[in-house]
Amino acid sequence: MASRVDRDPRCGWTGSVSFEEMWRALAPVGRSATSGGYFRQPFTPAERECADWFAAEAAARGLTLEYDGFGNVVAWWDVPGASGPAVLTGSHLDSVLDGGAYDGPLGVVSSFAAVDLLRERGFVPGRRIGIGAFVEEEGSRFGLACLGSRLAVGAVAVADAEALTDRDGVRLGDAWASAGLDPAAGSKLLADVGCFVELHVEQGRDLVHRDAAVGVASEIWPHGRYRFDFAGEANHAGTTRMEDRRDPMLTYAMTALAANKQARLAGQRATFGRIAVEPNGTNAVPSHVTAWLDARCSTDAGLAALVEEISRQGLARAERDGTTLAVTAESVSKSVAFSSSLAATIADPHGWPVIPTQAGHDAGILSEAGIPTAMLFVRNPTGVSHSPAEFAPMADCLAGVDALADTLERLACKFPRLSGETCGCQ
Amino acid sequence: MASRVDRDPRCGWTGSVSFEEMWRALAPVGRSATSGGYFRQPFTPAERECADWFAAEAAARGLTLEYDGFGNVVAWWDVPGASGPAVLTGSHLDSVLDGGAYDGPLGVVSSFAAVDLLRERGFVPGRRIGIGAFVEEEGSRFGLACLGSRLAVGAVAVADAEALTDRDGVRLGDAWASAGLDPAAGSKLLADVGCFVELHVEQGRDLVHRDAAVGVASEIWPHGRYRFDFAGEANHAGTTRMEDRRDPMLTYAMTALAANKQARLAGQRATFGRIAVEPNGTNAVPSHVTAWLDARCSTDAGLAALVEEISRQGLARAERDGTTLAVTAESVSKSVAFSSSLAATIADPHGWPVIPTQAGHDAGILSEAGIPTAMLFVRNPTGVSHSPAEFAPMADCLAGVDALADTLERLACKFPRLSGETCGCQ
Repeated sequence: MASRVDRDPRCGWTGSVSFEEMWRALAPVGRSATSGGYFRQPFTPAERECADWFAAEAAARGLTLEYDGFGNVVAWWDVPGASGPAVLTGSHLDSVLDGGAYDGPLGVVSSFAAVDLLRERGFVPGRRIGIGAFVEEEGSRFGLACLGSRLAVGAVAVADAEALTDRDGVRLGDAWASAGLDPAAGSKLLADVGCFVELHVEQGRDLVHRDAAVGVASEIWPHGRYRFDFAGEANHAGTTRMEDRRDPMLTYAMTALAANKQARLAGQRATFGRIAVEPNGTNAVPSHVTAWLDARCSTDAGLAALVEEISRQGLARAERDGTTLAVTAESVSKSVAFSSSLAATIADPHGWPVIPTQAGHDAGILSEAGIPTAMLFVRNPTGVSHSPAEFAPMADCLAGVDALADTLERLACKFPRLSGETCGCQ
Repeated sequence: MASRVDRDPRCGWTGSVSFEEMWRALAPVGRSATSGGYFRQPFTPAERECADWFAAEAAARGLTLEYDGFGNVVAWWDVPGASGPAVLTGSHLDSVLDGGAYDGPLGVVSSFAAVDLLRERGFVPGRRIGIGAFVEEEGSRFGLACLGSRLAVGAVAVADAEALTDRDGVRLGDAWASAGLDPAAGSKLLADVGCFVELHVEQGRDLVHRDAAVGVASEIWPHGRYRFDFAGEANHAGTTRMEDRRDPMLTYAMTALAANKQARLAGQRATFGRIAVEPNGTNAVPSHVTAWLDARCSTDAGLAALVEEISRQGLARAERDGTTLAVTAESVSKSVAFSSSLAATIADPHGWPVIPTQAGHDAGILSEAGIPTAMLFVRNPTGVSHSPAEFAPMADCLAGVDALADTLERLACKFPRLSGETCGCQ
């Protein structure tokens, strides 16, 4: 049964949306039977199934598919007479390892549902509206978050991206070739885009505290990923005296605790969630421990200071352990302030709260590239994200669809409305 | 070129051995081109190639191969007129992950070389001599060390072993079937064995300090493997405030540091060398961390107290972190005292030192099963083991062959010699 959403009383309209049907169709794709979490890593069968689903939904609506050479795609709602810069929405379909259903797909499914809603409303856009799906937003396979959008705006060199490898040593260049993509074709998806609006499940509880189903983003905290390579000496776990060891696991363990403490003291974020140990045998002192630090702060300077302090403590411990530590910044994203006028245009008429986020998004990449960008957040009752337990109630999801439809209508009108104006499409 | 070994001056004999030739043949099997270490996990192609090598060496010497249903094998030197309980030597051919060349294969290669030496000496054994290779001594694939010898003596139930799984979820039962083995056939390899002598590279520097190329084992420290399951809640690494997390990585890190400190204080051994993290993504607070503790002590009571204290500190930290910790003993081996009369019989005539070891061995399993057992150690200049850097100089290896030949001669004579007697085979 398709759900019904109460329309903005200004128009007196009530429409049914296809949201739930699409949600059910995507639900089993790449889902682990044991954890219930999602494994939709780019260019794996599960993620390609999501890409096929996207193409089918676009085709069912008569939208025009435009691909680039990197795996990004936009489904365009072409309307005769539409002119001026296009309005882009959408999000991503990949997941972290064992991730949730909402992070990414909520934005894509909501975009299709919002187009359905606009059509039911009889809205005729004055500008082209596109629904985009960016590839490898999570960086869960090739290690660089927002990889697809970075490539689309030219923020990362194609040659550098091609050389990225996954955990099995597969190069992105080869994964592209296997998927039938030609990176030399580049990307023209954003050539005509005047603004971008990404809808996303909130990944904290700010909207819960504000008792709001929907909010608008003000900024993204600066954040980065740093590889910590701890090296020591493999040895027998039984016969090697404790004082004769050079055990990098100890240096890592102390560094992980230091990262937590420093972030906690500063009201910031530092996480070691990924680790690789060599040889990773029960009866062997490790030779190498590689661990990845995810760090986020409210300011660029704070982020640099946090990572420096964690590195300093790690290096000091390495000296005591007879090990070495090398820290490599794999990706660092500076603070992103979204267009405040665009946020006001979207939020003010409805009184939606405008809030910061600590999560990176393709929206941040497009904003940094000079495209006026906004984000809509949908309330997350537990705040849990990047986990099988990630969840948003259906009523809030449908409120998000409605909010996105409103926003697109406002931005894609022949005569774009400003806050407080009447609907330009009527 | 085959090396020459100076024979015990009592006999005035000098013989050449095939040691170096066999060593060169085994060297490339299962060796990583990048690390130089060995990956000879049971029932993998590399380990099966080692098993084929063993069969070929036995056939070349006219030895009779006897297999059991678990993957263990003995090559018997059958001599007409031999009677009484057999003398078994040998070791194992599997390695830890990224292990060294010597741990295991040195004992097997030395056994073949010692038989060659005895034949060159014209020695005719009064008892059968067997060269054994036990499977999965390291426990590097199915998690239970000395698995082959435990099965051979009946110390582990076949049904329990069949259900063991490797990291990819492959059951040992299926690995056996794929290797053409029938565990229902059991093992009769040890039915007629009167004593066992295992030659092994030393995994510490005791013989270096004693300036001896060869030593004899007095005992094996008690040791065990314990699985530490830390559980928390997966969450977004950016948006989840530090104080809202239930991060099992922190509990693990503190436990690893506590294990090191406790073992150091007590002059014992505790190592976390293996870890598995879920979902192991850079931008996700982990939901689960599983880590394996390898602990060894000079006494059974000391081992129990050490593991209890580490567990206690882990549990206390888990309470602070909002996580849980479950500790499971996967295998615990009590202290093993080798036959002191056998050790004296072997060591006294040569003045070889008699020393303890902290490493588990098949010899410990056979000794516990009531078979008089001894171990010969070959000097390891760095003490490094379970590492690509594991090494013993060729001269010491050849001294080990000579020592093993002497020992077998002593034990397999028609009229076994006691310390100080003349050679019974002359």
